[in-house]
Amino acid sequence: MAREPEALIAVVHGPNLNLLGGREPEVYGAATLDDVNASVSALAAELGVAVAFFQSNGEGALIDYVQGSGAAGFVVNAGGYTHTSVALRDALAAVARPYVEVHLSNVHAREPYRHASLLADRAVGVVVGFGADSYLLGLRGLVRYLRKHEDQA
Amino acid sequence: MAREPEALIAVVHGPNLNLLGGREPEVYGAATLDDVNASVSALAAELGVAVAFFQSNGEGALIDYVQGSGAAGFVVNAGGYTHTSVALRDALAAVARPYVEVHLSNVHAREPYRHASLLADRAVGVVVGFGADSYLLGLRGLVRYLRKHEDQA
Amino acid sequence: MAREPEALIAVVHGPNLNLLGGREPEVYGAATLDDVNASVSALAAELGVAVAFFQSNGEGALIDYVQGSGAAGFVVNAGGYTHTSVALRDALAAVARPYVEVHLSNVHAREPYRHASLLADRAVGVVVGFGADSYLLGLRGLVRYLRKHEDQA
Amino acid sequence: MAREPEALIAVVHGPNLNLLGGREPEVYGAATLDDVNASVSALAAELGVAVAFFQSNGEGALIDYVQGSGAAGFVVNAGGYTHTSVALRDALAAVARPYVEVHLSNVHAREPYRHASLLADRAVGVVVGFGADSYLLGLRGLVRYLRKHEDQA
Amino acid sequence: MAREPEALIAVVHGPNLNLLGGREPEVYGAATLDDVNASVSALAAELGVAVAFFQSNGEGALIDYVQGSGAAGFVVNAGGYTHTSVALRDALAAVARPYVEVHLSNVHAREPYRHASLLADRAVGVVVGFGADSYLLGLRGLVRYLRKHEDQA
Amino acid sequence: MAREPEALIAVVHGPNLNLLGGREPEVYGAATLDDVNASVSALAAELGVAVAFFQSNGEGALIDYVQGSGAAGFVVNAGGYTHTSVALRDALAAVARPYVEVHLSNVHAREPYRHASLLADRAVGVVVGFGADSYLLGLRGLVRYLRKHEDQA
Amino acid sequence: MAREPEALIAVVHGPNLNLLGGREPEVYGAATLDDVNASVSALAAELGVAVAFFQSNGEGALIDYVQGSGAAGFVVNAGGYTHTSVALRDALAAVARPYVEVHLSNVHAREPYRHASLLADRAVGVVVGFGADSYLLGLRGLVRYLRKHEDQA
Amino acid sequence: MAREPEALIAVVHGPNLNLLGGREPEVYGAATLDDVNASVSALAAELGVAVAFFQSNGEGALIDYVQGSGAAGFVVNAGGYTHTSVALRDALAAVARPYVEVHLSNVHAREPYRHASLLADRAVGVVVGFGADSYLLGLRGLVRYLRKHEDQA
Amino acid sequence: MAREPEALIAVVHGPNLNLLGGREPEVYGAATLDDVNASVSALAAELGVAVAFFQSNGEGALIDYVQGSGAAGFVVNAGGYTHTSVALRDALAAVARPYVEVHLSNVHAREPYRHASLLADRAVGVVVGFGADSYLLGLRGLVRYLRKHEDQA
Amino acid sequence: MAREPEALIAVVHGPNLNLLGGREPEVYGAATLDDVNASVSALAAELGVAVAFFQSNGEGALIDYVQGSGAAGFVVNAGGYTHTSVALRDALAAVARPYVEVHLSNVHAREPYRHASLLADRAVGVVVGFGADSYLLGLRGLVRYLRKHEDQA
Amino acid sequence: MAREPEALIAVVHGPNLNLLGGREPEVYGAATLDDVNASVSALAAELGVAVAFFQSNGEGALIDYVQGSGAAGFVVNAGGYTHTSVALRDALAAVARPYVEVHLSNVHAREPYRHASLLADRAVGVVVGFGADSYLLGLRGLVRYLRKHEDQA
Amino acid sequence: MAREPEALIAVVHGPNLNLLGGREPEVYGAATLDDVNASVSALAAELGVAVAFFQSNGEGALIDYVQGSGAAGFVVNAGGYTHTSVALRDALAAVARPYVEVHLSNVHAREPYRHASLLADRAVGVVVGFGADSYLLGLRGLVRYLRKHEDQA
Repeated sequence: MAREPEALIAVVHGPNLNLLGGREPEVYGAATLDDVNASVSALAAELGVAVAFFQSNGEGALIDYVQGSGAAGFVVNAGGYTHTSVALRDALAAVARPYVEVHLSNVHAREPYRHASLLADRAVGVVVGFGADSYLLGLRGLVRYLRKHEDQA
Repeated sequence: MAREPEALIAVVHGPNLNLLGGREPEVYGAATLDDVNASVSALAAELGVAVAFFQSNGEGALIDYVQGSGAAGFVVNAGGYTHTSVALRDALAAVARPYVEVHLSNVHAREPYRHASLLADRAVGVVVGFGADSYLLGLRGLVRYLRKHEDQA
Repeated sequence: MAREPEALIAVVHGPNLNLLGGREPEVYGAATLDDVNASVSALAAELGVAVAFFQSNGEGALIDYVQGSGAAGFVVNAGGYTHTSVALRDALAAVARPYVEVHLSNVHAREPYRHASLLADRAVGVVVGFGADSYLLGLRGLVRYLRKHEDQA
Repeated sequence: MAREPEALIAVVHGPNLNLLGGREPEVYGAATLDDVNASVSALAAELGVAVAFFQSNGEGALIDYVQGSGAAGFVVNAGGYTHTSVALRDALAAVARPYVEVHLSNVHAREPYRHASLLADRAVGVVVGFGADSYLLGLRGLVRYLRKHEDQA
Repeated sequence: MAREPEALIAVVHGPNLNLLGGREPEVYGAATLDDVNASVSALAAELGVAVAFFQSNGEGALIDYVQGSGAAGFVVNAGGYTHTSVALRDALAAVARPYVEVHLSNVHAREPYRHASLLADRAVGVVVGFGADSYLLGLRGLVRYLRKHEDQA
Repeated sequence: MAREPEALIAVVHGPNLNLLGGREPEVYGAATLDDVNASVSALAAELGVAVAFFQSNGEGALIDYVQGSGAAGFVVNAGGYTHTSVALRDALAAVARPYVEVHLSNVHAREPYRHASLLADRAVGVVVGFGADSYLLGLRGLVRYLRKHEDQA
Repeated sequence: MAREPEALIAVVHGPNLNLLGGREPEVYGAATLDDVNASVSALAAELGVAVAFFQSNGEGALIDYVQGSGAAGFVVNAGGYTHTSVALRDALAAVARPYVEVHLSNVHAREPYRHASLLADRAVGVVVGFGADSYLLGLRGLVRYLRKHEDQA
Repeated sequence: MAREPEALIAVVHGPNLNLLGGREPEVYGAATLDDVNASVSALAAELGVAVAFFQSNGEGALIDYVQGSGAAGFVVNAGGYTHTSVALRDALAAVARPYVEVHLSNVHAREPYRHASLLADRAVGVVVGFGADSYLLGLRGLVRYLRKHEDQA
Repeated sequence: MAREPEALIAVVHGPNLNLLGGREPEVYGAATLDDVNASVSALAAELGVAVAFFQSNGEGALIDYVQGSGAAGFVVNAGGYTHTSVALRDALAAVARPYVEVHLSNVHAREPYRHASLLADRAVGVVVGFGADSYLLGLRGLVRYLRKHEDQA
Repeated sequence: MAREPEALIAVVHGPNLNLLGGREPEVYGAATLDDVNASVSALAAELGVAVAFFQSNGEGALIDYVQGSGAAGFVVNAGGYTHTSVALRDALAAVARPYVEVHLSNVHAREPYRHASLLADRAVGVVVGFGADSYLLGLRGLVRYLRKHEDQA
Repeated sequence: MAREPEALIAVVHGPNLNLLGGREPEVYGAATLDDVNASVSALAAELGVAVAFFQSNGEGALIDYVQGSGAAGFVVNAGGYTHTSVALRDALAAVARPYVEVHLSNVHAREPYRHASLLADRAVGVVVGFGADSYLLGLRGLVRYLRKHEDQA
Repeated sequence: MAREPEALIAVVHGPNLNLLGGREPEVYGAATLDDVNASVSALAAELGVAVAFFQSNGEGALIDYVQGSGAAGFVVNAGGYTHTSVALRDALAAVARPYVEVHLSNVHAREPYRHASLLADRAVGVVVGFGADSYLLGLRGLVRYLRKHEDQA
């Protein structure tokens, strides 16, 4: 991934993340999705990468976006689709770009059906439990990964 | 919930329920979705509550509706998504309004993958197997629940 | 089922339901079993059906009652036997009369061994989670079912 | 199914199949979806049946199409939804037309969650592993099935 | 076991077997429990053994009987308790007399929870599926077993 | 089945039953296969039916025999193939004649892989644990079954 | 719990414990139930508490007793019902008094279905494997528990 | 695979397929094995390949044939051995020639033990449910596969 | 075990028990390990036996101690190793001395992985849930056991 | 086992081992079955024991051989039947001679269905993964075992 | 956590991490443990926190360290103990300080027994798959967590 | 591996093997660990290789030894850690030297938790059940393996 701003990282938010801030704040924190995106943008600027944001409640819309985004890598919080969507996994595999899976809450401390992720084994890495900081840590990790592999190329 | 008509209850129909009446009538009965909605409306009038109806085959569209409906409570027949949609469950949890889960057929007498519901444990109550009457019983149960808790408030 | 009062519906209460009102009221509510029976009786009168009540802590006594009641249908809250009694299930199948399964609490939100019911797949319908209202909704559903099938006969 | 061209067979492509040719060619082959559709069309002409094609990444859109296509039968490659969509299964059951399930790759040789299909047990037949030829074999099988049953009618 | 008539074999019928003949005759046959007992008595006379009969719907009553019968052996059809009663199993083990398990219907062809028996592994033998003949075959088998072991003593 | 001697019942012995008498006598008893066959023949004469015997250690040979025997019914002790042979089950289903499954030892008291039988659910009945008497009881049960159904014809 | 004699502890013996001494002495020891009760009484006197004893083979009778005993705490050996009775568990929860679960034999060294207890997780403590001493240790533990919590009150 | 007739494809029929036409025609159709082979031969001629046929009820005989046939590829319907024979799987792997698995009936709609195949994951492709047409579709698929790979050589 | 003081009972404390009193007092109580040991010592004196104490966080160190202690019996609270250490189980089996397993908290009411013990089935008995009293009850039980068996010798 | 040459050890090769050398040499090595037998013969001569060899692809033929070989012990590589043949296990148990199970490849590193052996728990010992050396090590182990037990006799 | 240097964060490396750099570099990368610690130290300095490092192959030694470190928080890579050590989990719970779980490799893409962590559900957060960067991201996340909670205090 | 004496093979004995000879001799034999080591040494001399021995009850100590031994290969009897130690497996993988797993007893005939080994799938081979001879057979197998691969180098 080039350090030039045109190298794009897409931050993908799955279902219900548009409610962030209002929804169960004791689980997900008080920051809104705009707040999260703002701090991601700030860090992206600091790291010298461009970021785009996309949120949808629809599985198909998320797949369409992943296919069409042209991004060099993804930071993905697939929400409830993390545990059920073979199709989203296939979309990420199909575009063959590195991605990082992030979660606001510690999914390992929640219901059993949230322990298994259909995305995790093909991810570069996974970050869970740090609230909105999960996105920031995931972005750092992805940028480091992209630069390391770019240097090898 | 106030007895004034503006207290809205949303009746949410999931995938394939638009086919009601024509689809496998030996399983689901001969009433169409309009028939069902009509008798729900009649009972709502009798009980003094307003109802709105929504049907979609799309998981994302159902989540969008749940988020935006502003309803005081939901009567939900999520159809096939009952058993697979963590995201719809999250949406109902996020809006934090009471809901009742209903099914036309007796899901316990059908395929094993229909025995488990991702919505049931957070529901006020569950009504299954009474055909279109499941909606009516569910609505009665929800209204009673809302009025009881309103009286406590 | 005839609308004449002699058409009997038996309401069967399983183990520990005699303690209702005193037992874990945060789970089961404050109404006593007499209170529940009184509101069931009131609704039965309104619907024009006769009801009989039976409670026992003994599996065999419940089976004896089901066999001998001569009821046209049953509203059954089998309590702890719901999850363990093949014999009670067999008794209900043997008398070959429609029945509705009801539970006060939302069993899906409790221990895993309460999620599976040995009675549910042969029931007309199942109502759970509405407190004492579960009986009322179940009675309505059963009466509707009996009248619909009577009309067809 | 009549041999006249108006007897329509709908070929339904699920999520990510729009990427065919570019996506993981070592798994899915080098033919694009247009290539696949072209050879299906050619075979359809040879067999004297009309075909229509539909692809979507959205579960709801696929269900909408199945409900509204008016097809006499379906050749379905539901991609990732094969393993997770009770709702799509319900849609195919609701329209009550014969369908054949096809897969490009040999799903039995892939991840365990691809071994189980929610569509297979209600299908006329299943064809997996022959690449784009799976569609052609599936179409032949479906046409034979439709003609055999038509002749019996 | 002595050939003298005082050597008693107890035939134990579990829950719902009192309904035999009337209950689901397509599964259990048209003979009543009295019919069954009559043919068992006839065979017992032929074989030169005394028999006693006991039926109860109560688990405790069955255990009381097993403990107090003083029988030299048992022919047991525990009905629904076959699959759930550790206590009945313990009672049979406690009295330390040989027993044969019988079933009217072929339990292996019915619901999965009827496939496992808590009594079978300690039984002399098991006979299933021959209708009322299961009792007769079981009695023959038990008598042969008792005589063989008596001869060895 | 006619009472005339030409109505043939085939007694099928699976693998290792040729060793009977010598093999693990504490489990299988001291009678040889010839002894067993002799007492089966004697009972058959008493009951007025013809019997044929076949033993093989080969799964294919047993299937060949079942297909070609022309028997009116089977008494089958499939030995180790009881638990593993879908093909033998299919052969018995294919010839569509009633059969009884028998075992010398009480399989329920042995290794877990001996608890499940692939033959049992399609059998008329099952007799286990009575040693060589299992064959005799099984033959009685089968003859009764055949005569009852013949009388109905 | 007061040190005055009127503070009652109920010792509840489940099915088959009336046979103690005669039943499988190599597993359960040679002491009769009266012997056990006598040593429990002696220790109770030493500890300054009153005890009552109840034994039944019936699940319902045990539940009736638990509901009506008015005891300040229970020492329960539910025998075979330990592993199967949700209803007995519910009864103990309903009366909301502390109880201790005891077993004569080491259930962990016996059949797998004896490893799981439906009573254990709500018990103050569990004592298994010490023969009749299990009752004595359990009584000591319960009295200590009651006195500690009484002192806090 | 060369287009010359000496390139041989072996069609392997497992246990009970010799009964085709007579055996459970509602499941397997009315065509005999000779009928099936005749239509396979006709298609083979049309496609320009030679075919040989082999049927046996014996697992060992099937393995012997697979080892010795010298075929360029196999169309295999292993019947009941599909689900149980590691040895047949090993034989197909050992000769290292492509094969296609076919089934007459839709195994996914039958007993659970027919859902898993020990052959499928190493097959080129699998065709199930089209009756005798499954062989024809499988042959087409195999010939296409062989020619494609020959052309690449 | 002799009543003379030289007969030694070793009390073995596993990982994290050195933190007792400070660690999660709501789960484990406020007594320190020294407090526990002091009351064990007092009871040992009363019972006329000698006790030694050992605590380690290391699995190997615990095994070394068990092997070398020369104790006549053990009271073991293996903490987290209870559920994971085959090696510690083997050590206790190897020295072939009776032992009692104790736990402070009610492990049956905690995480599922704490329900299974690798030590329990070979223990004389198990005591759980009485806080520090578990050690005292366990010591009483062990001493009774040792004296009973000594008396028999 | 006597050191005289007439003490025979039978080396039993199961299905597909006749292909050794040609079959998947990267898994099974390049030595043919004749090569393996030659080195086994050489070692047998060195150890002073006689050996006989048998290979078959048929389960029944292997059982026939085991029953009739008259060997003092067996070295068995049952190939694919290792994991599926209860009947072969029964044959080895029936002849009641010691046997050693060997495998060329490391079955623990292969497909899960190769991890479980139906023969292993009754074997003297098991040797896996050393290629053709597994036979040599197994023979050594068996001879040592036989001599040790002979010396004790 | 105070920004003063005395606020200590302990970085705990479990078994085999001392081999880092030399061990399977394609899985774990080429950096040695000293390299990792150096970059962690550098980041700690940048973030204004003190760090201490500890590595051991011994479960007990790791527990001893966790108990005695006096750290305000932990970054833990427990290596193989992640999946097996209830005792280490208990130690981290006992000291009641926040910790972050990190892994070099993507454990979700490795053997199934590496998918479950006994530490994860009590962790603040989990970071996996970023190589040595996992430590850096984990440290950032922990520091942010500590500062946020400190600010709230 | 060179035939010169400096090529070292390390024989690693896990927990409780220091007790050999005294511990459960009916399971593990009467030879002490010194006896075992002596015969291993004798065979090593005969084979022309050097051996070193190490025993520990501590998982960490065993890992330390494996990491530091500098051995060309290992003969490992990990005792109870065989079934529980991911960390020991990782250590053997990390040093990347061939190893052979051995067990004295036939683990397949013991408790289920001894059937699975965390070491076996990466071993050259596995030898179980031959008592102390398992070590000798394992050493032979390892030496052959090392020489074969050395010759290829």
